Amino acid sequence: MEVESKFVTIKAHIVGQPSESDFEVREHLVPLSVSPGSNDVVVKNLYLSVDPYQINRVKEHSASQSAISFAFRLAPGDRIDAYGVGRVVASANPGFEKDDVVVGLLHWSEYSVVGGESMLSKVDSKEFPLSYHASVLGLSGFTAYAGFHCVCKPKKGEKVFVSAASGSVGSVFGQYAKLHGCYVVGCAGSQKKVDLLKGKLGFDDAFNYKTESSDLKSALKRYFPEGIDVYFDNVGAEMLEAAVANMNTNGRVAVCGVISEYTNAQKRAAPDFLDIIYKRITLQGFLAGDYLQQYFPEFFSVTSDLLRNGKICALEDVSPGLESVPSAFCGLFRGDNVGKKLVRVAHE
Amino acid sequence: MEVESKFVTIKAHIVGQPSESDFEVREHLVPLSVSPGSNDVVVKNLYLSVDPYQINRVKEHSASQSAISFAFRLAPGDRIDAYGVGRVVASANPGFEKDDVVVGLLHWSEYSVVGGESMLSKVDSKEFPLSYHASVLGLSGFTAYAGFHCVCKPKKGEKVFVSAASGSVGSVFGQYAKLHGCYVVGCAGSQKKVDLLKGKLGFDDAFNYKTESSDLKSALKRYFPEGIDVYFDNVGAEMLEAAVANMNTNGRVAVCGVISEYTNAQKRAAPDFLDIIYKRITLQGFLAGDYLQQYFPEFFSVTSDLLRNGKICALEDVSPGLESVPSAFCGLFRGDNVGKKLVRVAHE
Repeated sequence: MEVESKFVTIKAHIVGQPSESDFEVREHLVPLSVSPGSNDVVVKNLYLSVDPYQINRVKEHSASQSAISFAFRLAPGDRIDAYGVGRVVASANPGFEKDDVVVGLLHWSEYSVVGGESMLSKVDSKEFPLSYHASVLGLSGFTAYAGFHCVCKPKKGEKVFVSAASGSVGSVFGQYAKLHGCYVVGCAGSQKKVDLLKGKLGFDDAFNYKTESSDLKSALKRYFPEGIDVYFDNVGAEMLEAAVANMNTNGRVAVCGVISEYTNAQKRAAPDFLDIIYKRITLQGFLAGDYLQQYFPEFFSVTSDLLRNGKICALEDVSPGLESVPSAFCGLFRGDNVGKKLVRVAHE
Repeated sequence: MEVESKFVTIKAHIVGQPSESDFEVREHLVPLSVSPGSNDVVVKNLYLSVDPYQINRVKEHSASQSAISFAFRLAPGDRIDAYGVGRVVASANPGFEKDDVVVGLLHWSEYSVVGGESMLSKVDSKEFPLSYHASVLGLSGFTAYAGFHCVCKPKKGEKVFVSAASGSVGSVFGQYAKLHGCYVVGCAGSQKKVDLLKGKLGFDDAFNYKTESSDLKSALKRYFPEGIDVYFDNVGAEMLEAAVANMNTNGRVAVCGVISEYTNAQKRAAPDFLDIIYKRITLQGFLAGDYLQQYFPEFFSVTSDLLRNGKICALEDVSPGLESVPSAFCGLFRGDNVGKKLVRVAHE
């Protein structure tokens, strides 16, 4: 038995900012049963994660951007991997049964067939909304957790700056920092987001970088009269330069993402390395995946408790239907999303 | 009793590359006796260190370079602090006696009066040439040691790149790395220096960056077909960008100096932060002074042993007479020096 499964793919490698017309929805046949011994799990996808980093797998690579190994590049017509939550339809893997709710690497598609090597995990479908497992309790939340506990390691009372602070990772990072007793300021791209950061998320302060763009260095000086100890960077470019200029001695920058550089290889942060030397600043790039095995259980338990006790708030921005993936994705680069961008592919 | 002591100062804050005409030699009276209870030590200077970083204390600061606190800036007419070796002429400090040989922060001058707060240390004047205490056994050697053991921490077999590799710090760092079992490649600015690195200093390979300047990225790719694990950076700008592009996963950059950016605030390294994220690269600025108290004795003992056993070589470039300080200093920015640049102010 098979089913027609829609999936989103690129028509060609994307140049510059992505637009909806770079994508198309195709269909392919997915078997609804599995061959014994194959270890395959067939999943009906429910919530799919839409993340800025995915552009790096589908864009045209300039000679000057060599970071992403060709092995990770996707070709037009390929299904695009995406973290998400789904329900098991059929399983040849002894770890999973029909109707289990699972989280892991799926695709921007209605159904995914996940092979034995892939990491799927079963989740308790009762306690939290299922979408949480693709947002605050999923890779986004974990990225914030790993960035906080494994990379930045802020101390109580330290001054913490977060960019893209209302985004999927920044919003969680900022809340961890507040709970830890840090002074936390975030920046975002609209007044609405700024209000959300200062209100619902409890940041000490926040600002709209678009209205400060003529002089980010002075803006940060105003928001951090005593300097920045930790910068959790999601954007790169000018904001990174301004943060380095405002850092204190022994400042740390966790480079989590550089969304403003993803779609423009010419746009690069050029921080003042005299600052980096004289202020003994460390800049560290990281990928959350490196910390999964050691820290995910701890993260999940800590963050579940915070959610249960209302100490942390999940900020989600959900679009309905697989067809909304391209606009959801392109919207990330226009700052349309408020919180974690998800697409609900099917009702639970 | 007083003596006329010559000292080197700046005529005005220096703009751009320094030239000899930016400096002048003045004289002032230095007492050859001390008031009891003052804690002062009068030192006749023998060897003075001439280092690129000193430009940051005497240059005109642009608005875009804010790193160096105004407290550390020197004014025209000021005596200029410099690490060096001297002989005690008179001492009110119970730790020192007349004729002791001492090392520490002196000045570009014939005599220095060093107050109680300053760190002077007595040195054994018999075992090594006195100049070594201002080079391989002094702050330059220690900067290499701290950069190696406290910042980069290379493992045996790792691939190490050193820029300004025939300079005061790079030449020692490269030798430590070789002794540790790393694969070490250095760059320098002339064929003579390249020959020295490959011959006398035992580097695995070396190249002249001036003949590779059209494409440093490809040059490093040739010298490191398996990628760079550790980059000890003394120059900044394009070389730092090229090194980041060629780094392996978990690569570390110790930012020790950025000589190419000191005299040009517009010249900045703009490494690809996609590399920094996807390859989990850490860039760390450091100042050796932070590690002095904890590591100097260990450094001194280890490095003395290496010198005794002929395992490490001191590369010194000595100019005679205090009047040679300006040309020695300006020569650093033209790459004139081979090894640690020192000025011999007086014979022992």
